[in-house]
Amino acid sequence: MPTANAWAAPSATEPLVKTTIERRELGPRDVLIEIKYAGICHSDIHTVRGDWGPQQYPLAVGHEIVGIVTEVGPEVTKHAVGDRAGIGCMVGSCRECDQCLQGNEQYCRKGMVGTYGAVDADGTITQGGYSTHIVVDEHFALRIPEGIPFEAAAPLLCAGITMYSPLHHWNAGPGMQVAVVGLGGLGHMGVKLAHALGAEVTVISQSLKKQEDGLRLGADHYYASADPATFETLAGRFDLIVNTVSAKIDIDAYLGLLNVDGTLVNVGAPPEPLPVAVFSLIMQRRSFAGSTIGGIAETQEMLDFCAEHGIASDVEVISADQINEAYERVLASDVRYRFVIDVATMK
Amino acid sequence: MPTANAWAAPSATEPLVKTTIERRELGPRDVLIEIKYAGICHSDIHTVRGDWGPQQYPLAVGHEIVGIVTEVGPEVTKHAVGDRAGIGCMVGSCRECDQCLQGNEQYCRKGMVGTYGAVDADGTITQGGYSTHIVVDEHFALRIPEGIPFEAAAPLLCAGITMYSPLHHWNAGPGMQVAVVGLGGLGHMGVKLAHALGAEVTVISQSLKKQEDGLRLGADHYYASADPATFETLAGRFDLIVNTVSAKIDIDAYLGLLNVDGTLVNVGAPPEPLPVAVFSLIMQRRSFAGSTIGGIAETQEMLDFCAEHGIASDVEVISADQINEAYERVLASDVRYRFVIDVATMK
Repeated sequence: MPTANAWAAPSATEPLVKTTIERRELGPRDVLIEIKYAGICHSDIHTVRGDWGPQQYPLAVGHEIVGIVTEVGPEVTKHAVGDRAGIGCMVGSCRECDQCLQGNEQYCRKGMVGTYGAVDADGTITQGGYSTHIVVDEHFALRIPEGIPFEAAAPLLCAGITMYSPLHHWNAGPGMQVAVVGLGGLGHMGVKLAHALGAEVTVISQSLKKQEDGLRLGADHYYASADPATFETLAGRFDLIVNTVSAKIDIDAYLGLLNVDGTLVNVGAPPEPLPVAVFSLIMQRRSFAGSTIGGIAETQEMLDFCAEHGIASDVEVISADQINEAYERVLASDVRYRFVIDVATMK
Repeated sequence: MPTANAWAAPSATEPLVKTTIERRELGPRDVLIEIKYAGICHSDIHTVRGDWGPQQYPLAVGHEIVGIVTEVGPEVTKHAVGDRAGIGCMVGSCRECDQCLQGNEQYCRKGMVGTYGAVDADGTITQGGYSTHIVVDEHFALRIPEGIPFEAAAPLLCAGITMYSPLHHWNAGPGMQVAVVGLGGLGHMGVKLAHALGAEVTVISQSLKKQEDGLRLGADHYYASADPATFETLAGRFDLIVNTVSAKIDIDAYLGLLNVDGTLVNVGAPPEPLPVAVFSLIMQRRSFAGSTIGGIAETQEMLDFCAEHGIASDVEVISADQINEAYERVLASDVRYRFVIDVATMK
């Protein structure tokens, strides 16, 4: 079994440490990727700390992965040695159910296989991208267009597609009023993508602290949710609101910002149920919906769209020994807008 | 000012009594309708009893109205004396906003004028259909096709359109799995309409008490919500669920019955907010939505659809002096499926 250098959590309560992990032998349809950069997603932190349930340790997380293909199995057709490749939140799915066949692998009837902490087809626990190498079925490896700098491409594999998929599904485009709630790793991609799709974009952030940034990223308007006047001024304005905030927010207040037939989409899930005033849905035929990442074909479409529109993530590149410190800064919302680990520092 | 016989509530706490009410003089675009039948909707009871806020009394309610046009204003073009006509939940709207122009008068930007208890354009409080006559702008009077018996047509004006509109908006039809939650006045119309639209229809009712009825009305399947196995058996099955229950139900349990991309639509609003587990929305891109009645053109479409498919409401015709008793039976869910007042008994 080949090994790879990695930074992994030894337990739910200890910092990540340098270690080695096993990767499977290359199967006929697998590709071996030498990882160049791995983004740090808030989910990584929740997972290693056991917030979303118990894990098997040591665990290397990371599902915003870019690198170079260095070996391919004999049946591989989609990738070649030397290709720039990416891996997002999925490394497997049944490939046979209606959802997989429709390109919605993320909604696979048998459950997608997550890039880390999930039980793989061979019974092993998947290990993520904070690592020098990864082996993956070629279907789940994306092409990273040349136009996108490698380090800025990594966060597209999770943050990018998490925002692109609902914008695309709910038809964000010219003539549409779109709001993005929260201007963090997800939100800043939402602003760039919604703007590039042609929508009129409003950021609703807790304060006006990042207003200048928001407008630079492509927002047309910027409001503070801490100001009660915001909810009066924007009442009934939006066709689509994408809420990136996983904390418990006042959903009814945001539903009140939707136009007739508007949709509020949550891409983050607070642990506790959110109270919804049904009257607000009924009187304007509004919807409250959820969405998670996107399918493989849609992820490729997003990457190609980003290359075409010169979009990528705003990142702060760190070395592996800065991961634990970066975690604390993510928890304090002190990052503009995504930490990306330079995997060369793991060698 | 012409007067009409009516049964009205003298206050929020007294039974309805026989009285007379004023109707406006016929305006140039008004029609005068001699009312033949008026359905009893649960909303009537909530309104007269002040459950939805204070009212001005005496108040005659009723927004499921059918009758004969007996006089028309000089500019009326849509109706003629002798026509069978109906009035639903609206008697006015601005007619100028984007929603009105799109035929969504129920979502009028300035607010629709309700058939009773609302402030009309002339400042008077609207009085509903428990009455011998009504004057209404011709736009808000529907044509009742000859094929539908008068008394069975009345409930289509509220119960019928309340179910037809979401079924139509969310594309109920062949190949769709549709559930109707609750088999009362709304639910029984939902079953008939969804079946006629070609969907596979499941009723989810508290018990199996009305199962035989449900299947006769057009349901393909019938389940009891009191049986916990129902929520396992039906998990992930439905593309569309229309919830007619206004009481607080476990929304998460019903969201779990939705397929990927499925929608749960509430047509009734419980007074308190409902807790929604966002995770359930996210992992299958599900939606929780609301809908209220339908526009005038859509209501006409529904009436024509009902005539074409031989559909109408199952009713129990009562005399005016039975209204108060009927209210108690509605509150006890003891009606199959709609009380309709024979207005001849008001003379």
